Amino acid sequence: MRAVDVIQKKRDGHELTSEEIAAFIEGYTRGTIPDYQASALAMAVFFKGMTSRETVALTESMMRTGEVLDLGALPGPKVDKHSTGGVGDKTSMVLAPLAAACGVYVPMISGRGLGHTGGTLDKLESIPGFRVGLSLDEFRAVLRKSHLGLIGQTPEIAPADRKLYALRDVTSTVESRPLIAASIMSKKMAEGIDALVLDVKTGDGAFMVKEEDSRALAEAMLAIGKGMGKKIVALITDMEQPLGRTVGNALEIVECIETLQGKGPEDLETLSVELAAWMLSLGGASPTLDAARARVREALASGAGLRKFQEVIGLQGGDPRVCDDLSRLPRAAETLELRAESAGRVTGIACRAVGTAAMLLGAGRETVDSTIDPGVGLVLRKKVGDAVSTGEPLATVHVSDRRRLDEALAMLRRAIRIGAEAPAPRPLVHAVME
Amino acid sequence: MRAVDVIQKKRDGHELTSEEIAAFIEGYTRGTIPDYQASALAMAVFFKGMTSRETVALTESMMRTGEVLDLGALPGPKVDKHSTGGVGDKTSMVLAPLAAACGVYVPMISGRGLGHTGGTLDKLESIPGFRVGLSLDEFRAVLRKSHLGLIGQTPEIAPADRKLYALRDVTSTVESRPLIAASIMSKKMAEGIDALVLDVKTGDGAFMVKEEDSRALAEAMLAIGKGMGKKIVALITDMEQPLGRTVGNALEIVECIETLQGKGPEDLETLSVELAAWMLSLGGASPTLDAARARVREALASGAGLRKFQEVIGLQGGDPRVCDDLSRLPRAAETLELRAESAGRVTGIACRAVGTAAMLLGAGRETVDSTIDPGVGLVLRKKVGDAVSTGEPLATVHVSDRRRLDEALAMLRRAIRIGAEAPAPRPLVHAVME
Repeated sequence: MRAVDVIQKKRDGHELTSEEIAAFIEGYTRGTIPDYQASALAMAVFFKGMTSRETVALTESMMRTGEVLDLGALPGPKVDKHSTGGVGDKTSMVLAPLAAACGVYVPMISGRGLGHTGGTLDKLESIPGFRVGLSLDEFRAVLRKSHLGLIGQTPEIAPADRKLYALRDVTSTVESRPLIAASIMSKKMAEGIDALVLDVKTGDGAFMVKEEDSRALAEAMLAIGKGMGKKIVALITDMEQPLGRTVGNALEIVECIETLQGKGPEDLETLSVELAAWMLSLGGASPTLDAARARVREALASGAGLRKFQEVIGLQGGDPRVCDDLSRLPRAAETLELRAESAGRVTGIACRAVGTAAMLLGAGRETVDSTIDPGVGLVLRKKVGDAVSTGEPLATVHVSDRRRLDEALAMLRRAIRIGAEAPAPRPLVHAVME
Repeated sequence: MRAVDVIQKKRDGHELTSEEIAAFIEGYTRGTIPDYQASALAMAVFFKGMTSRETVALTESMMRTGEVLDLGALPGPKVDKHSTGGVGDKTSMVLAPLAAACGVYVPMISGRGLGHTGGTLDKLESIPGFRVGLSLDEFRAVLRKSHLGLIGQTPEIAPADRKLYALRDVTSTVESRPLIAASIMSKKMAEGIDALVLDVKTGDGAFMVKEEDSRALAEAMLAIGKGMGKKIVALITDMEQPLGRTVGNALEIVECIETLQGKGPEDLETLSVELAAWMLSLGGASPTLDAARARVREALASGAGLRKFQEVIGLQGGDPRVCDDLSRLPRAAETLELRAESAGRVTGIACRAVGTAAMLLGAGRETVDSTIDPGVGLVLRKKVGDAVSTGEPLATVHVSDRRRLDEALAMLRRAIRIGAEAPAPRPLVHAVME
């Protein structure tokens, strides 16, 4: 196999064999196939796509360049959830403890945020002492003890994906559905799980804005999961306004703890319970989805989910007292209110702009080198459909570095639209795809 | 300008500005833009094409990375011809001396052959002592003296093209019309010429097999030439059978000298005269094309063309006696005849196969590292339409290294098809595009 022939075959619209894909990915990871051939192939895939069979082969090849966890020794179903990311999307810290409290093992390997969406790792790191950088051995030990582990991608997991993603980022080949799907799935499939629940966001704040694109991405990931013999489901969920009320790392942890205390916003609680129920159901821990929902609700009501979160925080080096004393989490230097300039109903909250406003405050990364301020962010006081009177607070802004405050406030003000009538409510879950 | 944004812009089908193209090409040549971004852009161009404006900008940018000859001091029109290459295509060695003998300056910078087509440089180098590697100063001196210079691409000419072409070769991005056109034209436009005659081959032995593709490539090159203010014409010419009778380096020089002596095959003589006449006409050395044809025919009949070739051979270090004594050219160790196994008419000569057979004998390069045997090759004894009786020679094969002889002979036998009726003759010049 010559790399140049593989590129030409894809360029000319033919299906690559699993052997060709594996040889290319292995060669690229080892460095015998140079970046310039990998970027040419990625661009050819951008234009010509990949069949399901090719995408499965790509995922398996990338996964096999690294370690694949063998969790066979753990006595119970291993299930994870993956979200394509959104603004205020913090379900992991709610659903993972709930599912673990219900007896499912949740070996969750997450990413950092870039741009307008936050990353699970950044949120977890706002908990004093919390270590996301466990070795795979430490991870396995935490998982065995608590049914739950929450770490970042280690160098041992799918190194081909890390190398290829960095290349795609600088060659305008990120936005390719099969490459996106294979990138996500190569890491998830390395977790040694039996089942995976996909939360594919759709709407202004999502990576895929249009529902048809979200569904197509879900299809691609479902095909990979099934092709690799896993149980898998995808929920297409709404991202037309931020999930919950908080955007910002420690602020989101506060909201997660409050949700696990039974005091969270309805949308976050509902979606977290739904996703956790699917995890139980897919993993075979509950006979029906309804039974799974009831069990998760019970773990929420009894506080078992909160205690599970507290336990894993302690096991991963964090301060478990945060679950009882929220003041132990970092805070911004000051808060100020963004107030309504007119009365009416909130007709929309431009999700992407809210995420960018939070980033400008220091809650997110503009580039990979940016540092994050864990305390800053914003709390929405109104959500879509709520009534507003003039002068009423729309959002509380938590700020430490005022340098880009005006820009953030202006963006936030434009993002929260007020009009005469509330729009028809959008469903939280648009579709379930199996 | 970020390279990644330029790639994305092209990927998404937008027209790049001249500034973007120039910055990309300069950055790539200097090494500040890496190969992996250039290959991604090349693949995006493969799929999305380029407008005429973009192709002109690309050609100019590549040309400007190197030296552009200023031949303003030479008192007469400077005109060159470029052929897209074919089997037995040796018109340069006939038309360039003829045009120069008629008072036109011909600063010809040529390439080497690869695959089934031979290269002008390889043919010239079969003349004992002939130096194609003159410096640009030596080239200018020869040109001033004899109106003619025949050299290879120097490192000073369009270095961006050399770097980009090598990259395209290993990333399956060669077959892109705007990239092909810009590559050819960036070198030709650096020659400091006023006018250019394009010989765009069409048919089985050509780079572009289909006439529509040949015409499209001609269009692209015409647009570049005009966009850069040059006089330019393209002749779409036939390459369904080899041009002339010889394929192989010294054998082709023999045929060129014989043609300049007035004893050449009709197709080679006709096409060479036609192209030379266009050179005179475009360059303004003759008032009409018909007058130009008459003048070129006169230079042929008088032997002025042959003496011009002899002069330039001498000036470039070669043995000028070859023009009077063909035995001074290298010869193969032995010759053998390929004889007809049936009687009838030659219905076709698969041109590409003939080129490949010559390559297998050692007349051409299979890879860039192959060495060439100047003496070997083949002489067609029959051309399409000729009557053949059983046992009559179809071709004389000149061979030195017999290792791949059987393969070459089998290929040659399959290439020369014999049937009941001669096909309708094809025109030598399919079209003239201005």
